[in-house]
Amino acid sequence: MIRDDDIGGRGPARYPIVGVIGGSRVDEDLRSMAYDVGRLIAENDAILVCGGLSGVMEAACQGAYEHDGVTVGILPSDDTYEANPYVQVPVATGFGIGRNTVIVRTADVLIAVGGSYGTLSEIALALNLGKRVVHLQSWSLDQAGAVDPDLYVEAATPEEAVERALEYQPGPQ
Amino acid sequence: MIRDDDIGGRGPARYPIVGVIGGSRVDEDLRSMAYDVGRLIAENDAILVCGGLSGVMEAACQGAYEHDGVTVGILPSDDTYEANPYVQVPVATGFGIGRNTVIVRTADVLIAVGGSYGTLSEIALALNLGKRVVHLQSWSLDQAGAVDPDLYVEAATPEEAVERALEYQPGPQ
Amino acid sequence: MIRDDDIGGRGPARYPIVGVIGGSRVDEDLRSMAYDVGRLIAENDAILVCGGLSGVMEAACQGAYEHDGVTVGILPSDDTYEANPYVQVPVATGFGIGRNTVIVRTADVLIAVGGSYGTLSEIALALNLGKRVVHLQSWSLDQAGAVDPDLYVEAATPEEAVERALEYQPGPQ
Amino acid sequence: MIRDDDIGGRGPARYPIVGVIGGSRVDEDLRSMAYDVGRLIAENDAILVCGGLSGVMEAACQGAYEHDGVTVGILPSDDTYEANPYVQVPVATGFGIGRNTVIVRTADVLIAVGGSYGTLSEIALALNLGKRVVHLQSWSLDQAGAVDPDLYVEAATPEEAVERALEYQPGPQ
Repeated sequence: MIRDDDIGGRGPARYPIVGVIGGSRVDEDLRSMAYDVGRLIAENDAILVCGGLSGVMEAACQGAYEHDGVTVGILPSDDTYEANPYVQVPVATGFGIGRNTVIVRTADVLIAVGGSYGTLSEIALALNLGKRVVHLQSWSLDQAGAVDPDLYVEAATPEEAVERALEYQPGPQ
Repeated sequence: MIRDDDIGGRGPARYPIVGVIGGSRVDEDLRSMAYDVGRLIAENDAILVCGGLSGVMEAACQGAYEHDGVTVGILPSDDTYEANPYVQVPVATGFGIGRNTVIVRTADVLIAVGGSYGTLSEIALALNLGKRVVHLQSWSLDQAGAVDPDLYVEAATPEEAVERALEYQPGPQ
Repeated sequence: MIRDDDIGGRGPARYPIVGVIGGSRVDEDLRSMAYDVGRLIAENDAILVCGGLSGVMEAACQGAYEHDGVTVGILPSDDTYEANPYVQVPVATGFGIGRNTVIVRTADVLIAVGGSYGTLSEIALALNLGKRVVHLQSWSLDQAGAVDPDLYVEAATPEEAVERALEYQPGPQ
Repeated sequence: MIRDDDIGGRGPARYPIVGVIGGSRVDEDLRSMAYDVGRLIAENDAILVCGGLSGVMEAACQGAYEHDGVTVGILPSDDTYEANPYVQVPVATGFGIGRNTVIVRTADVLIAVGGSYGTLSEIALALNLGKRVVHLQSWSLDQAGAVDPDLYVEAATPEEAVERALEYQPGPQ
């Protein structure tokens, strides 16, 4: 899918880039939602970027991979072989959790599926950069402080999450 | 204070390192609390590390600086001259908000004073690394998700904040 | 090319990843060599990773792009729209020249085409990590210090460069 | 030394920051030179910044520490306790060799003592940023490519190295 003869030469803007964030250990419900999020990203011709490891990241990559999508894994280690098997383009940062910043900067918009402290750090970085985060069963930030409701958006289903994400496409910064 | 003839040769463990995080724009109340936090860090012979810029960062550095403390500023830009005037040791990362990871990794424990999304990202990174964050009028995370009450601790005054921070000194990792 | 039904599920090892490094301003000779290097990387079913900007980076991406290859641009800024138009997967690090480390860690092997100090830093980082660098008209390091001749290899043509690069495929670290 | 009542409030520019780079394993000659470089940096009221580990880094820190200097160690790991015992201010980046960029950005000017590929990467990054590197028995870059002789300067002794470094103090960028 990354190659489309109708598209060549129009630059990286050609496809939206959607970040998927969430924990490396998940229950079956979250895994299933993450798979569907990945599938829907692929079916909407967007590139999926994530942290490249297991749990939500692997389920989302599998969903995209099995539906002809493109999957990018921004890894914490310096070893591209640590990516999950559905990552087509592994990027080895070697920055540990500091790679979260790179995920957030690369994505146009993000979808959080569950997640713990690491996911919260990515949500906060995205909001700091003015990027929308749509979340499925993740942190209830509106109860924790002053949060822009147009930036941090709750969704009930993977379909709603991807729709709310893709409707939000800021142009070049 | 960084030189003490009784201390030489015992390595970096010799002084606790306390991170102070918070926004670059603050009202007078937060500024005053940040100043007192910095003062108390200095009076307790700890090193203050922060983001090196204005607002909470500058007020805390001033409080430490004016009470013979040591102040370290981990800057987002690649220009050490962007540090506030109370930073004695500026570190120019050039990583933008990615420098938050370095602040959190360098600190043994952190104190959050107010703060917006950037501060929230530092809180989340610290909790992810298992480091205590004591907060003064910052995010109410216990209302947002599952948070370890021994890691994320609310304080009512600068005195209580520094006390709760310094009582929490993990050894070498 | 990134999708190949015969390959699915074998993980990121499936394709070699070749880094192409060199200056953002180049003469026509270097540009032509960089284009051919990119073309040959694509024709050999390898992924091309580079710094994503102009000069050698753009020429190599164009060569790969126009021959059905996959191009990844690890950018210094935090804006994916700064990638050259032949980058399919832009990664926005926001680390400035610190992104050179990410290029080197992501690539299995590197090809240097000309280049100044920035390229030299990438060559040195790669050698430090034990990765081969094949060079075309780049730094003559063997005259500057102790350099492993199996790691830093001069080539006379793009064909020889890509051949020497692809013959050197270390396994998982 | 970091505290001087005559100096307060003039900001981080108050002291020059000299980076010392070199290998973690060294012979006695290089170690002795590194110690003297550190001593002379301290005696000239400059801050010493280095990679914080052993070899040249430790010898230089010891020289500065034992002559009332200030020593900063920018560490590759995320553990401040990995600094050598003469580091007063450890900074834990967690970026591995990516921390070399932070050393170079923080220093006003650098002194290389011997060194292998890692040191070469720091030299190249410094030259890329337009910062002078004075070297003692390090890479002979003038034989390897086009190098600015005002930026990359050979010295014969620690005294000459520190003198050539401190005479080169660029202002704010």
